Amino acid sequence: MILANENFGKLQSSYLFSEIAKRVAAYQQANPEVKIIRLGIGDVTLPLAPACLEAMHKAVDELGHEATFRGYGPEQGYGFLREAIAKKDYQARGCDISASEIFVSDGSKCDCANIQELFAQTLRIAIPDPVYPVYVDTNVMAGRTGPAVDGRYEGLHYLESTADNGFVPAPPEAPVDLIYLCFPNNPTGAVATREQLKAWVDYAKANKALILFDAAYEAFIRDPSIPHSIYEIEGAKDVAIEFRSFSKKAGFTGVRCAFTVVPENLVAYAKDGSEIRVHPLWNRRHTTKFNGVSYPVQRAAEAVYSSDGELQTTEQVDYYLGNAKLIRKGIEALGYACVGGDNSPYIWVNVKGDSWAFFDRLLREAQVVTTPGAGFGRCGEGYVRISAFNSRAKVEEAMARIAKALRA
Amino acid sequence: MILANENFGKLQSSYLFSEIAKRVAAYQQANPEVKIIRLGIGDVTLPLAPACLEAMHKAVDELGHEATFRGYGPEQGYGFLREAIAKKDYQARGCDISASEIFVSDGSKCDCANIQELFAQTLRIAIPDPVYPVYVDTNVMAGRTGPAVDGRYEGLHYLESTADNGFVPAPPEAPVDLIYLCFPNNPTGAVATREQLKAWVDYAKANKALILFDAAYEAFIRDPSIPHSIYEIEGAKDVAIEFRSFSKKAGFTGVRCAFTVVPENLVAYAKDGSEIRVHPLWNRRHTTKFNGVSYPVQRAAEAVYSSDGELQTTEQVDYYLGNAKLIRKGIEALGYACVGGDNSPYIWVNVKGDSWAFFDRLLREAQVVTTPGAGFGRCGEGYVRISAFNSRAKVEEAMARIAKALRA
Repeated sequence: MILANENFGKLQSSYLFSEIAKRVAAYQQANPEVKIIRLGIGDVTLPLAPACLEAMHKAVDELGHEATFRGYGPEQGYGFLREAIAKKDYQARGCDISASEIFVSDGSKCDCANIQELFAQTLRIAIPDPVYPVYVDTNVMAGRTGPAVDGRYEGLHYLESTADNGFVPAPPEAPVDLIYLCFPNNPTGAVATREQLKAWVDYAKANKALILFDAAYEAFIRDPSIPHSIYEIEGAKDVAIEFRSFSKKAGFTGVRCAFTVVPENLVAYAKDGSEIRVHPLWNRRHTTKFNGVSYPVQRAAEAVYSSDGELQTTEQVDYYLGNAKLIRKGIEALGYACVGGDNSPYIWVNVKGDSWAFFDRLLREAQVVTTPGAGFGRCGEGYVRISAFNSRAKVEEAMARIAKALRA
Repeated sequence: MILANENFGKLQSSYLFSEIAKRVAAYQQANPEVKIIRLGIGDVTLPLAPACLEAMHKAVDELGHEATFRGYGPEQGYGFLREAIAKKDYQARGCDISASEIFVSDGSKCDCANIQELFAQTLRIAIPDPVYPVYVDTNVMAGRTGPAVDGRYEGLHYLESTADNGFVPAPPEAPVDLIYLCFPNNPTGAVATREQLKAWVDYAKANKALILFDAAYEAFIRDPSIPHSIYEIEGAKDVAIEFRSFSKKAGFTGVRCAFTVVPENLVAYAKDGSEIRVHPLWNRRHTTKFNGVSYPVQRAAEAVYSSDGELQTTEQVDYYLGNAKLIRKGIEALGYACVGGDNSPYIWVNVKGDSWAFFDRLLREAQVVTTPGAGFGRCGEGYVRISAFNSRAKVEEAMARIAKALRA
């Protein structure tokens, strides 16, 4: 008899964004004439940078000729892209990361989801709250948690991110083995200082723990004192894996490209305490379960690092940061405390009440879609996330509507 | 302490294709003047069909304008592609498969590798021998096997594919729960008749087992009596998941697109014997761990089903089948028995001796690369796989060299 993986049954069924979509659709149907502005989901809106378009067209042309056609590429990604990443994203910032430590993939979601396969079933896992749901859900599916009780899974150690700690949790007193961190944070938009990251690296070293560092929003950092990579912290190469994406950096949400950095000397342990290098494990997983990223997509990603590509994609990020600044200023002027929006496309607003009620209020009274913080975890209650991914005109219009609604 | 998944340590370390690459490189280095012809790995060589190129260029252009830009798409794939697949690949053959049952992905390798996550740890798994290594390796990594002993993992039920059963194993006497089948077969090139597939479907129904049917080479079937899909067998929708790919059908090995069919009513079971539908499980896995296929790639895949695309890709497959026919004729004329090459790009040759020795002989004496059957499992010993993926001129030259070498 074919038995199912019953761990799937533990997953909380209502997925945040589908609940939002349902409420928005119902409101739109009841009010077909209103123009809803979406500042909810974190999806980009600007067209792809010309440098990326050109590279992609060129690569498609290559596939049309026998002499330049490419079939299977290396599962880990083409050398041209791995080299560009190592040089521009790491070596240029003084991080000693080489091309062989870069694994190109079709998305950070996949990488963050798949990485847990390399580790044992019996781990003490630290997960931020609020949190991007993928870290939690993939460990639930893999059977590393008990059932959910009051929205929290038994067996996970939650790292509470609240106003009290500036939304950057410190390492716990209790020892944990696998630590998920995300900075600039989704959903809060908070960033971690060098000192805060150093505390985590030191903790990981002391406890033989491993940090999974999600830096998908790294390109939004403008404060020169904030590290872009965990590898800017001394010793991090021994205790951290880093995830990066072209989704937000270069508008690749529909193009699909990302990468994971697994340092060559990073180790996990066997039950008998002996060291097991993680790089060969991820390499084996990547080559056995994945067949590489589409060639034209890899060429488009490479173009992000060309001089034109760097200018054009930086300009896009600046545009969204301009939106974020407007949102933050507008919200603060209305008397609401918030974090994020300066080194992040997200603004995390303390709504002084129930987050779904505030979401509903903005939808009904301002026709603006946000994301209720409660959907990201217990500590998200009382907040909404506002995203800067939209056109300037729509953001201005949304903020005018929100101001009118909340002042009424 | 961060413990590793020690099941990775059970994997047989020498990967077939890297061993081949090593031997070929060593030979080439020692003989820099010779021109090696590669009929080993199953990678396509013809340029992408014009219909696909055009669709891809058009989609890239769309990404360059705000009005037509697309960010995140549905994780399961765009409706335009799922509809085309359901209609052309299934409904046109009388299979009652709808678009909602199609999950678009970036490769059959990923799908075949990931599907086991939906099922319990304690399964009796039937695996063909010889076999595409991904089915086995992913279950080893997931901890469903014991260690390898003499090249076979403890706890797996091997389905021997030999000349005695025409390389199509019958269902076993013992009950198994999860069954991997691949037709047209990689590596043997054998196809399964309607009656043979019906026996498997009946077995699965009787034993509440599930069939994972890998039909990646379906486009190579030319015999009208051979089913292209497991769903051509009555009742298969209740017991089978099917994997398909654009890699060989349309030369997408570097473009990356595939799909999996999970029928809406297919069930697995809980430990208490109650039914659990598999479609929502795969949907949950797909939406949690994957973020959809690149938009231009999905448009290129859609173009495979246009009238131009169908003509052009069928012509490509016919070209490779023409190569396969030449190879099979040539090999048979030399007095070797073989299977495949008629409804498959692979010819499985009984070399009447050690498969690595024969591989080495063809490399040294004919400068032709094949794949030693022993690399695919114990029953592959005594065979080599010859692939038809190359240009006609190179195949002709290779066969002339092989004839000269083997007649010498």
